Amino acid sequence: MNNEIRHILEAVEAGSMSVDDALIKIKDEPFEDIGYAKVDLHRKIRQGSPEVIYGEGKTAEQIVGIVDMMLEHGQSPILITRFSKDKADKLAEKHDFTYSASARIGIVGEIPEADGIGTIVIATGGTSDIPVAEEAALTAECLGNKVDRLYDVGVAGIHRLLANREHLMKASVVIAVAGMEGALASVVGGLVDCPVIAVPTSVGYGASFHGLSALLSMLNSCASGVAVVNIDNGFGAGYMASRINHMEVR
Amino acid sequence: MNNEIRHILEAVEAGSMSVDDALIKIKDEPFEDIGYAKVDLHRKIRQGSPEVIYGEGKTAEQIVGIVDMMLEHGQSPILITRFSKDKADKLAEKHDFTYSASARIGIVGEIPEADGIGTIVIATGGTSDIPVAEEAALTAECLGNKVDRLYDVGVAGIHRLLANREHLMKASVVIAVAGMEGALASVVGGLVDCPVIAVPTSVGYGASFHGLSALLSMLNSCASGVAVVNIDNGFGAGYMASRINHMEVR
Amino acid sequence: MNNEIRHILEAVEAGSMSVDDALIKIKDEPFEDIGYAKVDLHRKIRQGSPEVIYGEGKTAEQIVGIVDMMLEHGQSPILITRFSKDKADKLAEKHDFTYSASARIGIVGEIPEADGIGTIVIATGGTSDIPVAEEAALTAECLGNKVDRLYDVGVAGIHRLLANREHLMKASVVIAVAGMEGALASVVGGLVDCPVIAVPTSVGYGASFHGLSALLSMLNSCASGVAVVNIDNGFGAGYMASRINHMEVR
Amino acid sequence: MNNEIRHILEAVEAGSMSVDDALIKIKDEPFEDIGYAKVDLHRKIRQGSPEVIYGEGKTAEQIVGIVDMMLEHGQSPILITRFSKDKADKLAEKHDFTYSASARIGIVGEIPEADGIGTIVIATGGTSDIPVAEEAALTAECLGNKVDRLYDVGVAGIHRLLANREHLMKASVVIAVAGMEGALASVVGGLVDCPVIAVPTSVGYGASFHGLSALLSMLNSCASGVAVVNIDNGFGAGYMASRINHMEVR
Amino acid sequence: MNNEIRHILEAVEAGSMSVDDALIKIKDEPFEDIGYAKVDLHRKIRQGSPEVIYGEGKTAEQIVGIVDMMLEHGQSPILITRFSKDKADKLAEKHDFTYSASARIGIVGEIPEADGIGTIVIATGGTSDIPVAEEAALTAECLGNKVDRLYDVGVAGIHRLLANREHLMKASVVIAVAGMEGALASVVGGLVDCPVIAVPTSVGYGASFHGLSALLSMLNSCASGVAVVNIDNGFGAGYMASRINHMEVR
Amino acid sequence: MNNEIRHILEAVEAGSMSVDDALIKIKDEPFEDIGYAKVDLHRKIRQGSPEVIYGEGKTAEQIVGIVDMMLEHGQSPILITRFSKDKADKLAEKHDFTYSASARIGIVGEIPEADGIGTIVIATGGTSDIPVAEEAALTAECLGNKVDRLYDVGVAGIHRLLANREHLMKASVVIAVAGMEGALASVVGGLVDCPVIAVPTSVGYGASFHGLSALLSMLNSCASGVAVVNIDNGFGAGYMASRINHMEVR
Amino acid sequence: MNNEIRHILEAVEAGSMSVDDALIKIKDEPFEDIGYAKVDLHRKIRQGSPEVIYGEGKTAEQIVGIVDMMLEHGQSPILITRFSKDKADKLAEKHDFTYSASARIGIVGEIPEADGIGTIVIATGGTSDIPVAEEAALTAECLGNKVDRLYDVGVAGIHRLLANREHLMKASVVIAVAGMEGALASVVGGLVDCPVIAVPTSVGYGASFHGLSALLSMLNSCASGVAVVNIDNGFGAGYMASRINHMEVR
Amino acid sequence: MNNEIRHILEAVEAGSMSVDDALIKIKDEPFEDIGYAKVDLHRKIRQGSPEVIYGEGKTAEQIVGIVDMMLEHGQSPILITRFSKDKADKLAEKHDFTYSASARIGIVGEIPEADGIGTIVIATGGTSDIPVAEEAALTAECLGNKVDRLYDVGVAGIHRLLANREHLMKASVVIAVAGMEGALASVVGGLVDCPVIAVPTSVGYGASFHGLSALLSMLNSCASGVAVVNIDNGFGAGYMASRINHMEVR
Repeated sequence: MNNEIRHILEAVEAGSMSVDDALIKIKDEPFEDIGYAKVDLHRKIRQGSPEVIYGEGKTAEQIVGIVDMMLEHGQSPILITRFSKDKADKLAEKHDFTYSASARIGIVGEIPEADGIGTIVIATGGTSDIPVAEEAALTAECLGNKVDRLYDVGVAGIHRLLANREHLMKASVVIAVAGMEGALASVVGGLVDCPVIAVPTSVGYGASFHGLSALLSMLNSCASGVAVVNIDNGFGAGYMASRINHMEVR
Repeated sequence: MNNEIRHILEAVEAGSMSVDDALIKIKDEPFEDIGYAKVDLHRKIRQGSPEVIYGEGKTAEQIVGIVDMMLEHGQSPILITRFSKDKADKLAEKHDFTYSASARIGIVGEIPEADGIGTIVIATGGTSDIPVAEEAALTAECLGNKVDRLYDVGVAGIHRLLANREHLMKASVVIAVAGMEGALASVVGGLVDCPVIAVPTSVGYGASFHGLSALLSMLNSCASGVAVVNIDNGFGAGYMASRINHMEVR
Repeated sequence: MNNEIRHILEAVEAGSMSVDDALIKIKDEPFEDIGYAKVDLHRKIRQGSPEVIYGEGKTAEQIVGIVDMMLEHGQSPILITRFSKDKADKLAEKHDFTYSASARIGIVGEIPEADGIGTIVIATGGTSDIPVAEEAALTAECLGNKVDRLYDVGVAGIHRLLANREHLMKASVVIAVAGMEGALASVVGGLVDCPVIAVPTSVGYGASFHGLSALLSMLNSCASGVAVVNIDNGFGAGYMASRINHMEVR
Repeated sequence: MNNEIRHILEAVEAGSMSVDDALIKIKDEPFEDIGYAKVDLHRKIRQGSPEVIYGEGKTAEQIVGIVDMMLEHGQSPILITRFSKDKADKLAEKHDFTYSASARIGIVGEIPEADGIGTIVIATGGTSDIPVAEEAALTAECLGNKVDRLYDVGVAGIHRLLANREHLMKASVVIAVAGMEGALASVVGGLVDCPVIAVPTSVGYGASFHGLSALLSMLNSCASGVAVVNIDNGFGAGYMASRINHMEVR
Repeated sequence: MNNEIRHILEAVEAGSMSVDDALIKIKDEPFEDIGYAKVDLHRKIRQGSPEVIYGEGKTAEQIVGIVDMMLEHGQSPILITRFSKDKADKLAEKHDFTYSASARIGIVGEIPEADGIGTIVIATGGTSDIPVAEEAALTAECLGNKVDRLYDVGVAGIHRLLANREHLMKASVVIAVAGMEGALASVVGGLVDCPVIAVPTSVGYGASFHGLSALLSMLNSCASGVAVVNIDNGFGAGYMASRINHMEVR
Repeated sequence: MNNEIRHILEAVEAGSMSVDDALIKIKDEPFEDIGYAKVDLHRKIRQGSPEVIYGEGKTAEQIVGIVDMMLEHGQSPILITRFSKDKADKLAEKHDFTYSASARIGIVGEIPEADGIGTIVIATGGTSDIPVAEEAALTAECLGNKVDRLYDVGVAGIHRLLANREHLMKASVVIAVAGMEGALASVVGGLVDCPVIAVPTSVGYGASFHGLSALLSMLNSCASGVAVVNIDNGFGAGYMASRINHMEVR
Repeated sequence: MNNEIRHILEAVEAGSMSVDDALIKIKDEPFEDIGYAKVDLHRKIRQGSPEVIYGEGKTAEQIVGIVDMMLEHGQSPILITRFSKDKADKLAEKHDFTYSASARIGIVGEIPEADGIGTIVIATGGTSDIPVAEEAALTAECLGNKVDRLYDVGVAGIHRLLANREHLMKASVVIAVAGMEGALASVVGGLVDCPVIAVPTSVGYGASFHGLSALLSMLNSCASGVAVVNIDNGFGAGYMASRINHMEVR
Repeated sequence: MNNEIRHILEAVEAGSMSVDDALIKIKDEPFEDIGYAKVDLHRKIRQGSPEVIYGEGKTAEQIVGIVDMMLEHGQSPILITRFSKDKADKLAEKHDFTYSASARIGIVGEIPEADGIGTIVIATGGTSDIPVAEEAALTAECLGNKVDRLYDVGVAGIHRLLANREHLMKASVVIAVAGMEGALASVVGGLVDCPVIAVPTSVGYGASFHGLSALLSMLNSCASGVAVVNIDNGFGAGYMASRINHMEVR
């Protein structure tokens, strides 16, 4: 940012740019305003990945509008999360894209080559946690990561997890997805030496209180090296894991 | 109870007992009323173990009074839980008894021989959970059980638990005591084939919410064969485990 | 487990087993991996009862797949909990099984002879608690227990409970199922001398907060010898009671 | 109120009262403003009992000031609740009064003769609930009620309660005071045919959450004819019971 | 109860009753067991009003069965609460009864003459609270009370309440029904000198948390003489008010 | 109010008004009682704006009835909030009015000229918050305010907010509408020097707990000059902002 | 801000400022960094009032350091909130200032003349709410407002509030301070036509949950024109009221 | 682990190791059991960093014992968290170590050279958050990281944060520490392109509910690339950041 302002200032000093033009330049909006949304077009430059569309609470029309505008500005791939089947059907009338019904994710454009440091391992406690895990997996793949899926390895049958220890040992980041008591995060956190992203899910009933139990469990993990995202936030975990997996020396 | 009433009725029929005496007998109170407390003296007969004195919220004088009265009626041993050091000092002026400061338990009288089915194993997640575990251990011993202590085997270093698997395998009941995320109960529950009593502790900080996190975790355990008692309720776990360990064919 | 490794090592020493074969043996997976699930086939050996299928959050196809695979490995009976009618209909196209719509339980295979220590008594506070009680009852029966049902004996009409005291007195384990204020567990806990498993239900409205009131009540029971499972967790109570009812001397 | 205005209006009509005097009369404040408090002096007329001083959060000086002013206006007896020992000592320097340290209640003036319809029975679950029960008892006595104390009759030993059924049967109102799981209210509610005021107490630990468990229990009572006051609100229960016990035909 | 046992004993003594008959008599069940329910037939004698059927969680068939059996035993009127329209339709195929769809209450049999001490005034904060108020009103009428309805007098327009002060002043009991912030109970409690039963409703949104806000408000009422029932529990309030309104000297 | 009573009293003194007429006048109800509602017709005089109809929990018939009566008394415009489409259709059969489906608001009568001190700026964190923002906007416009909409300026892309700083700087009041973590209120609060009304929305999932997260965030804002209304309460924010924007010297 | 950048640019264009100087100017920090704090010195210009020191969690040394630095930069008056007596004593060793022990507020420098639109009325429900009210009052006075205190006018004695209606009617803003059930805000909100800032206090016990009850009450106020600040946040209310009371036409 | 077993097996095959020795080796405990603790001595090998001593809930004697034993096994440096001053004094009698009273951290042994990928930036919202930030900073330094402290840059004065944007831009990981509304995490998350670890603190009062508000805020962050640790868990954040900052290609 700094350099840009310097260039503008130098141009003004050199007389090659008027004060008013400079003013506009400095205040130029790095987003497109389409009324109901201000789409962030500089995000790839600023944060290394394009804006993601959070589908819930937006009408199908709004989503189509945002996709149109992002495509116009050459943004690709475009990730749409919490994207219900019926809204996806509306988008399908206009654009080709990949859709996962269980993960409720749509991807417009090509999934890039994996270019991260290593592999992201995604483990789930049970079968019912798979939709959230898939949201994480598709997000991570969409952001250029190699993903290894390790499903149904909950701690009630600890041998299933231990038998897959080798997978875990090779991970550069682990995403631990679990509902109910969410103990998976702690056990995994104690086995590996890489960062662990814990995703509590709303799987369970009664005193699971829609994921609260797993959330608290994971926040209180007695294992070190574990950080937590929101309940059912597979996207957030995949995104965070990707950032970690794309660390660079500065 | 039924038989007793039958005997009374038969005595009345036989003329060997007057109606008024029968009335008194039937209504006879199986407890001693000392104003601030109605001490249950039939409990040993009714439930196999004497009444236990819950020390919190009672004055030292009240506790001494109840102990006096129980001793008078030949109750022994007497267990006093949540019994603070200063109240214990008051009791010590009058009676000999064993006191554990960390477990805040006092025991008046002899600890009986162990006569249960097998051994109760008490496992803790960490060192800080030991006071609650000791409350459970002393309670169980006081009720006639053999206890095996297995402390600091939390799931963040799962090898510590696995290395002690043999202890667990020999248990007739396991008491799993853990704070923070309370994952110990689930992992233990998945390893053993005997009943597991889970005790959440208030060990932790922040989002452990004074034991709520561990409590919810244990209630949502994905392992079967786990039941839970109140936060920090070592006594309750020891008592329940003892009941299980003294099961009889009926 | 220990013995098995010794045998393997002795075979290696004797030259009758290669290092690589030994390595495989030690690491051999006691479960079948079918992608979305890792079915635990050793559980009966390890824990005395086959794996149970938690139906919620699994598709009908996944359930059918798991059942197929368990039957292939000779597992029987197979218990499917939280099993909705429409999923059950899918399974019925392929397998014969018993289904209880109110308890939402399916049982594939024969219910075994009761071989426990005694009888499990299941009491409910009201009529609305019966579905949860039936989940417990069917689970317990499926695991080889004799069950005695004592429904609608809530404490607001304490004489109904007292009139059935004899049933309670003969129990080896009592399961107390109640919603609203869940006081049944405390009153029963004070009457019997066997272990009591308390199941809070979500029956109620307003400040029952979907079972929270009953849950807290039961956790805070002033009666000793009571342990609690998750809200509406009839299965968990039946399973725990069965473990207790099958205690063995070790 | 209506009549009073009529009299004023008639006086104005008759010319015996000026408009300005009438205005003052109508607007006359039925309370004394002493800056930090507006003491309600008409309450006895309006509501049948004098204002009560809630001691918590008031300085000793403020309490003395309010008492002074109430005595000046002939209010008696004066009830001071949540009145700590050290503040009471300050008041004792100036006025004679009765003080109960456990109930933290002070009473300035004579306790009146009991003139209610019948007897208020106050039952507690345990010994630790007695301070709250005493707050209720002293409040009720101070408001002209006969009180019958029935302490330590919790439901874990239901025979203690049943043995005292006669006391309950003679009550015109019952106040049920209990902490932990608060089941006393439901059982009592099912036994009697008079109104029951339930007082949850903060007695307990862990998942009692400072009285929340007992509060929810009592609100969800499956017995009819039970209403609830705030946690530890012995005063409120005593006051409500007194209102009921002083019902009049209108 | 006492007298009855005496009579039995005297009969046994006189030889006019055998021991076995006496035993049966003493243990005779004052309820009818129809499997899914144990209908309390002595309640009218014991508590002055017949058992009430809580419709939620019971099937239409179960409700019809209970009604049948109660009618057989001459119980009338029969009150059915939380009684949905479709279940009511089922009952209508067999019995005549009055049904209020908004209050979800059915009444089988005649509403008795009002025979209470005075009038029960039922006030609501808004129009949306009327269904709960009607549940209270119909319950109270069904139990023999005169009811005065005072709807939509919430405190945001305090003059509406003050203008109706006369109604309140004539009440023997007031039921204050309000959602949102539930302030009505406090303001009414400060105006009247009779008992006030407060009913929080789930009317509101956001931070009303389904009635929690109103519930807490009412429990913390700064006015004395207010007791609270469960959220939306119009029935409980009507029942409690009726008990108060039928107080008798003992 | 005072003056009015004086006039009445003077009229009585002068003999031009009888005592009974005066009594009626003083007690005259400033509202119309239509059974299910007491419509406040003096509110415009008392509070500067007509009563608003809260549509939830009222039947379409009740709403039509209230509108009829308000129109009869010349009240206009009439605002109906939380007004569902199907109820609105019922009203449309009888009256012309403007309806916003997303804001669920109906306005009967003309929207007045803006006559406030300045402009109310309404900012949202995201697109999904727009319905709540529109409820605020329409309310404010209906009450005579100029509104400037600034949507989708959430803090995750702070440059979008900063680029619109000029809008904010010109506001006389800002309404900040945001769900999820609700950080918008704090950032806006730190940028402007006018009052900020924060509206948490229920936009989000998992640990947003239906708006609780945003609500707590806003209440704990580290910026000064921020006050909060209920979750999703666009109406309340618009009303409050209007009151501020119509401040007058007194 | 815009103008400033324009001036800098024009200076650069005119050659009277070098690019590097311009760069520094644009990036010049409007705050002083003293390591543990970055004191905001431009706030008076930006937001019309100087930064306020939140005393809690800061050491006495840190507070003295910040005051020193602010005085150096000519900031006055300086408000220090949540300022404990012992920390205040430390500051007193170095600077003269006014201290209110009950409000825990310190003011360094002169309190300015009142220059707001009108008067801020601060009402409390009870005597115990006064410390929070005083925090609001002193804050408002310190920011140039006339304050009218109206203490102990809680709704349980509504006549005390109504008798002071005239005070309320003259307010330009009302701050309603109340604990327990917090009903004051709703009643006041229904009486006045100016903005109302509601401050819940932690006054109360049991189910007041440290102010939660009052907070929810106020957020759910059925009166319009009420917005809420954090529990016990007298400062925030005073600040917000001052902003409203200093509204200007733009 | 795999290789080790292979080596043992090969040794057995080669006859250079007996079966019994092999059995011992395989089962050899990688921890030292000192009764109250099982100190994990292989953790450095397994997870790249030595075990950390959680000081809370351990006696000074226990801590000294664990330190002794770790030093014996050559573990260094040793980090002791939540280490109170008085316990630290006990350790100081025996060992030299660095102690930070505000962060409550003790470090035995030398802090290693920083060898991570880049710099960890630790930002706080306010001055009161510094102790938690220091816990994170010292932990990270102790684990070989370069740390850049950026304190008191809360969002209420967003220019303070923006002015330090350059620091943020150079971070390899950012730790955002904030209490109250915790908005810092979202704003920082939107500015940087590296992973952000959010630490909610218990700084605040009232509705901050001891850090719950900040916790929820951070979990619901609308910015991507943010993961959260427990309230006040500076250690956890420092540890997680270090793991990320020591990522290696595998």
